Amino acid sequence: MSGKSRIKVACIQMTISDCNKQSNVEKALYMANDALSDGADILVFPEVFSTGFCYDEIETSSEDENGETIRQMCAFSKINKCVMVFSIIEKQAFSKGLKYYNLGVCVEDGHVVGTYRKTHPFKREKQYFSAGDSIIPVRLPKRKLTIGLQICYEIRFPEVARKLTLMGSDILITIAEFPSPRGHIWRSLAIARAIENQIPHIACNRVGEGSDSSFFGGSLIVDQLGDVMEEAGDDESVIFGTIDLEKITKIRNDIPVFDDRRTDIYYNL
Amino acid sequence: MSGKSRIKVACIQMTISDCNKQSNVEKALYMANDALSDGADILVFPEVFSTGFCYDEIETSSEDENGETIRQMCAFSKINKCVMVFSIIEKQAFSKGLKYYNLGVCVEDGHVVGTYRKTHPFKREKQYFSAGDSIIPVRLPKRKLTIGLQICYEIRFPEVARKLTLMGSDILITIAEFPSPRGHIWRSLAIARAIENQIPHIACNRVGEGSDSSFFGGSLIVDQLGDVMEEAGDDESVIFGTIDLEKITKIRNDIPVFDDRRTDIYYNL
Repeated sequence: MSGKSRIKVACIQMTISDCNKQSNVEKALYMANDALSDGADILVFPEVFSTGFCYDEIETSSEDENGETIRQMCAFSKINKCVMVFSIIEKQAFSKGLKYYNLGVCVEDGHVVGTYRKTHPFKREKQYFSAGDSIIPVRLPKRKLTIGLQICYEIRFPEVARKLTLMGSDILITIAEFPSPRGHIWRSLAIARAIENQIPHIACNRVGEGSDSSFFGGSLIVDQLGDVMEEAGDDESVIFGTIDLEKITKIRNDIPVFDDRRTDIYYNL
Repeated sequence: MSGKSRIKVACIQMTISDCNKQSNVEKALYMANDALSDGADILVFPEVFSTGFCYDEIETSSEDENGETIRQMCAFSKINKCVMVFSIIEKQAFSKGLKYYNLGVCVEDGHVVGTYRKTHPFKREKQYFSAGDSIIPVRLPKRKLTIGLQICYEIRFPEVARKLTLMGSDILITIAEFPSPRGHIWRSLAIARAIENQIPHIACNRVGEGSDSSFFGGSLIVDQLGDVMEEAGDDESVIFGTIDLEKITKIRNDIPVFDDRRTDIYYNL
């Protein structure tokens, strides 16, 4: 990090109509406008926000990096000079046939600056999605900022956020469709990931009813001390937080976790 | 694990008079009697419960494994056929001179069955204590049970509890002198360690005033789902929980975190 120290971030905690791409993207951009008018610079959307886990129509739900959803998000981000973080169902043609992924995408001022294929698909997801094969944060060239992006189930694995932090992330973002009734699991882990990595954490969840699950929302913006800056309820809403990156250095001096790690005895984790 | 499935555990959340060994041990055993009369089989005491961080009198505070404190604890455990988990200030003579450690001890039915030297001393502790060089859980031969013991600051490092769990721990125990005002840090991490490792967690803290810190207590007994079974306030007290080890298998089938870990991409953690 060597850009602006204070950054306003927003989580768009939205309902999603499964398999109804046009309606979801329209609503997402409508809510994004509200976030911008409140001064947010980084906008975060839930996991597979444009389609939900639309397995029945996966062929039409999925897109590649040049697909319509990413193009719409890039256009919005270019006009409004903002960062947008979300995931879509990705389709890629390989020599042995089609593969689908849960593709995390980070757009800065109109350009895709990084992607992350979910490395830990959960249960039924494995029937449809291939898993990504690396954990690497996304660097935003204009803002001189590094975002560590993880997806839903991965919040249960401390290894993922740790790896993202060790690789230089300034902010941790979790985008999710974390279902009811696991609200307290989500909340505890969202706060713990911030504390143990001494990093601000935007944990953005879906809300409302899906075709076979319901979602409690409960999105959080947590600071580098683990203090909750803002927390959503169980309704559609946008929550905000102002992240102060200089405070990361302070907490890491006070509680020198990263100096005190004993990598000599963590082998085979 | 292949012993009894349901086990009653107790955390002795006690005040400690720094450098006043006799008084601390007497009180600990007095409170231990209460815990036994309520049916507890595993009794957990705070970090360096017999002395506090008695640096000014470290020579007289410290003992080796044959010292008086461990002998008293073994005698009590033998009479009452119970498990006791605590730490003391250890003194060891090496060829190059004396070394001190924060030594975790696990006693079963009168015998020391395992020790663990704190591997992550915190700040001022480093001036006095050497660090242990391995993370290995303690196996209780009579109860066919494995305890993963970590000490205080180590609750901030997800690697420690993960390593202990991967090495077969049935129960995670954290003994601590976690100071005020960090109550919410302690609580969030105690719950998160249980959730992410799908393991019951006894997190036992000191309470009351020390020579240069105060301690909020807030000990917790958390089940393998992250649900708090019992939680102490900021007074001296004994809290209990009944751990059901068979439920660990159930949660690991429902949410197969340990099958889904991607050790191929966690290298260099």
